[in-house]
Amino acid sequence: MKVIVVGGGAAGMSAASRVRKLVPQAEIKVFEESSYVSYAPCGIPYYIENLVNDINSLVTYTPEFFKNERNIDVHIKTKVLKVDLSAKQLTTVSEEGEKIEDFDYLILSTGAVPFVPDRKWLEVNHVYALRHLEDGDALKNDLKNLNNIAVIGGGYVGVEMAEALSKIGKNVTIFEMRRVMPNLDPEYSQIIKQEMQKRSIKVFEGFTVKAIENTGEKVRIIGDSEQPIFDAAVLGLGVRPNVELAKSIGLKLGETGAIWVDETMRTSNEYVYAAGDNIEVNDLVIKGRKRYAPFAPEANKEGYVAGSNVGNQNVRFPGSAGSAITKFYDLEIGVVGITEEEAKRYGIETFPVKIKHNARASYYPPQEEVYMKIVFDKKRKVPLGAQVIGKNVWGRLAYISLAIENNITVDRMFFSGVPYAPPFAPVWDSLIIASRIFYERV
Amino acid sequence: MKVIVVGGGAAGMSAASRVRKLVPQAEIKVFEESSYVSYAPCGIPYYIENLVNDINSLVTYTPEFFKNERNIDVHIKTKVLKVDLSAKQLTTVSEEGEKIEDFDYLILSTGAVPFVPDRKWLEVNHVYALRHLEDGDALKNDLKNLNNIAVIGGGYVGVEMAEALSKIGKNVTIFEMRRVMPNLDPEYSQIIKQEMQKRSIKVFEGFTVKAIENTGEKVRIIGDSEQPIFDAAVLGLGVRPNVELAKSIGLKLGETGAIWVDETMRTSNEYVYAAGDNIEVNDLVIKGRKRYAPFAPEANKEGYVAGSNVGNQNVRFPGSAGSAITKFYDLEIGVVGITEEEAKRYGIETFPVKIKHNARASYYPPQEEVYMKIVFDKKRKVPLGAQVIGKNVWGRLAYISLAIENNITVDRMFFSGVPYAPPFAPVWDSLIIASRIFYERV
Repeated sequence: MKVIVVGGGAAGMSAASRVRKLVPQAEIKVFEESSYVSYAPCGIPYYIENLVNDINSLVTYTPEFFKNERNIDVHIKTKVLKVDLSAKQLTTVSEEGEKIEDFDYLILSTGAVPFVPDRKWLEVNHVYALRHLEDGDALKNDLKNLNNIAVIGGGYVGVEMAEALSKIGKNVTIFEMRRVMPNLDPEYSQIIKQEMQKRSIKVFEGFTVKAIENTGEKVRIIGDSEQPIFDAAVLGLGVRPNVELAKSIGLKLGETGAIWVDETMRTSNEYVYAAGDNIEVNDLVIKGRKRYAPFAPEANKEGYVAGSNVGNQNVRFPGSAGSAITKFYDLEIGVVGITEEEAKRYGIETFPVKIKHNARASYYPPQEEVYMKIVFDKKRKVPLGAQVIGKNVWGRLAYISLAIENNITVDRMFFSGVPYAPPFAPVWDSLIIASRIFYERV
Repeated sequence: MKVIVVGGGAAGMSAASRVRKLVPQAEIKVFEESSYVSYAPCGIPYYIENLVNDINSLVTYTPEFFKNERNIDVHIKTKVLKVDLSAKQLTTVSEEGEKIEDFDYLILSTGAVPFVPDRKWLEVNHVYALRHLEDGDALKNDLKNLNNIAVIGGGYVGVEMAEALSKIGKNVTIFEMRRVMPNLDPEYSQIIKQEMQKRSIKVFEGFTVKAIENTGEKVRIIGDSEQPIFDAAVLGLGVRPNVELAKSIGLKLGETGAIWVDETMRTSNEYVYAAGDNIEVNDLVIKGRKRYAPFAPEANKEGYVAGSNVGNQNVRFPGSAGSAITKFYDLEIGVVGITEEEAKRYGIETFPVKIKHNARASYYPPQEEVYMKIVFDKKRKVPLGAQVIGKNVWGRLAYISLAIENNITVDRMFFSGVPYAPPFAPVWDSLIIASRIFYERV
């Protein structure tokens, strides 16, 4: 059996490894555009920040490891030009020229691409969009002698890059069309903005970048009225599924614009599977809806599922509730599920609870806080989504995510054994208080 | 309606407050032996450690607060001597002498008492068992001029007191009959022991204390062969439910020796409720079994449930899986549910998974680890118990506790959205890896 994997990121290498484990005699080839496979692009901000000094630390395994330890044939700097589905052949191009490859099964793990409103922005000197590790490397090199940096976009990447750049002493300005972390309520977004200002980051909200141009060696950010000038700009405007190849071979795209797959990760063609930031999966919050969840844990597991099924197991990926976390300095930021507004659009009556509470026992120093909003489904009495910011967010988000995914009702949440000790949580943890508020109204 | 609450700790004050909220016209009296109500005895180690300087910080609300804000009549330093159930009367004693009080409903929240093998030990000078805040105060005062301290018992209290005493520069020696944190596997217990030794704490395991005596101003710990001498000793041998009063009035005790209650917290007498460290509740792991869970979150919620039902609501406490956490310096220690051995005793076939993994992304400093053992039910495919030690334990324990309590199967755990970002967790978090190991064997 010949298996070809297109894209050597988390999903691709996870799929390839799983096929290898299940089908010892399979011939497995991976084609990857960049110079790295099995890499962690989410580590780039920490490389910029110098928390990670060697970019190779962001690589879990090398092509040599995959060749020697897993008998997986990895071809880096190799692009797949076209696929002939009826012939089960594809054409690759690398420094060595074009080549034709046969396959029995194809796994597309082409990932996502940074959203850029205008491709021309990428031709501007000192302007960066971060996708591959090479992009991180190029940015880090360029930054050495530059000081005034614009970050375009105030979402996850924007927040992480702002922190990294600020930590290495750069003057940072963030431009965001709506508000910082626009997937949060305005009140929580405001807390993050204030934290940014405390760290001397300039924040422009409601600022739509119309164009980016060079002016000499500088970069000019063109808005509606202002046109400030910087030494460099980093784009963090979110990502889009990379579906070019899938489209070119006529695979079905889904309602989110990403590749449609069933729960086995099979696309509309029975010999083609897909996994990672290029697909959409079941939404675990609103049944029947699909969700685009371009997160590393999902990608790894989707790859696992695709590889398992190519390996003739029957493994199904239930879907995602979109649990995601980041931080800005000491302020942790977590989101999962849907907002009140989204719920309304689906005709779901909600009961939102918003609280602010101690992150640990009130008497245990330091005194830090957690802000939590949980949106409950008033009828089904289950959580639909949450925003958690402040301290000790990770565990609280993991707990709420599990509750959302498994339709755990509010009474079970209120009476659940959230562990307690003064250094970790108050006796009445925010999770319990938030549940209690809804519980008493049910 | 007259409601009397015996014991003003977490459960008692939670119950009293709930009755007040639901029954505005109720006459509510609370009788408390010590000088404090609504106190956090679990904060005593941090008071000893000087993290908390004022013992009043460990008091959530004062008797005055309850009087003025909640119209609850709190009598401190008042003991309940006897109860006449048929007359619905009880006799209290305080500095002002004996008094007879009437009630319609009685709520017993008499808490737990430190286990002491021989009451005579408590008469030895410089020997302390910690129950009320006064005990913490007395110990702290006494410690000022003392240096060599024995801690008897290596469970939660022993570990926390050892940390506190070590942090204020005392020479600490722990004596434990079995091994440090005996509810953990030997391998994990060993890690804690090593951490203690690193902090210059002497650890005697397999040491049964036969007696404790004064020798001049010193304290002699008498074992099988050795009889070391200290300046003071702190007992941390676990707790027992305080059921003296319940027994004296003929209430049914349960299989664990604690007061039997139904899910509404009603005892065997329809006018008497009980809540807190003196009762047993449903075990959420082995159905039909009862569990003694003397933890503050349970006590608070049991009080809430008792008060709700006295207030004529129909609220039921589902039970506890025994989720508990502590720490020794930077080593966090969490336990929930049952062990392999316990499962065997109930004829349950288990699949234990034991792993060691990074607490966060491997490249994100500092490099710290989490050790995790999850015991799964092989047939029902749900987790039954877990031990988690190392870093970022709280959230992982909250997650596993919720999974145990709600019978979440291993496939749902494996595919769950445990949130990921390099500073918080690896992409393949220990929770996911542990689940995966069992998932692949199912």
